Amino acid sequence: MIKDFKVGDRTSFIKVFTEEDLEKFSQITTDRNELHFDEDYAKVSIFGKRILPGMLTASLFSALVGNHLPGKGGIYLGQTISFRKPVFINDKITASAEITKIREDKPILTMRMLCINSKNEICVEGEAVVKYMG
Amino acid sequence: MIKDFKVGDRTSFIKVFTEEDLEKFSQITTDRNELHFDEDYAKVSIFGKRILPGMLTASLFSALVGNHLPGKGGIYLGQTISFRKPVFINDKITASAEITKIREDKPILTMRMLCINSKNEICVEGEAVVKYMG
Repeated sequence: MIKDFKVGDRTSFIKVFTEEDLEKFSQITTDRNELHFDEDYAKVSIFGKRILPGMLTASLFSALVGNHLPGKGGIYLGQTISFRKPVFINDKITASAEITKIREDKPILTMRMLCINSKNEICVEGEAVVKYMG
Repeated sequence: MIKDFKVGDRTSFIKVFTEEDLEKFSQITTDRNELHFDEDYAKVSIFGKRILPGMLTASLFSALVGNHLPGKGGIYLGQTISFRKPVFINDKITASAEITKIREDKPILTMRMLCINSKNEICVEGEAVVKYMG
């Protein structure tokens, strides 16, 4: 029931992105941007080394919604994303979701979504809107 | 050069999502939601069969930005996403990007992003904001 959720409910998990994750993401999407795959190009970029695709990091939001909050019975309606800081291969990322609003007229949750690195920097943030059919 | 781009510039490509893409996405993200993996549950849901994670379809935007518009030299700043219709395994999806705005003060492009199925229905749409360092 939607009443089982309240503003402030929160979930998180940790993911360390590997070279293999990057390769799989590229196979799915066909994204082969030089910043992700060309060491020489990335080295002289503003990032200094290869970075992960922003949408790869943001894809963790899918698991927060699909597995945890609300998990079974949730239907993803929308997501905003800001790519704030680069995420590098082998970075340890904490992905989290926190309910910020529950509509009174419909079973729809709004959540603040974050991906934070081990230096406690927000790398990716956004807002998710999810319908709960549970 | 940012001057090489203009409002109305457009790119697209076609992707048929396979069961293997779903499995890879799940391995990356850990998303194991029942709507994607439990045939019996999905059959009695409003969708009638298993659907793909919305963020899997939206991940095609990464390739539009990374490979095509602007491709090399682009830095993804943000993305909004609306999940409008379900995408099913083996659906043929046309992902497209079209420049809607180019800032005069900074080399920043705004683009309308779409994922359309073979019935010409918009399944996923949103707006991308990309900096061009090329």
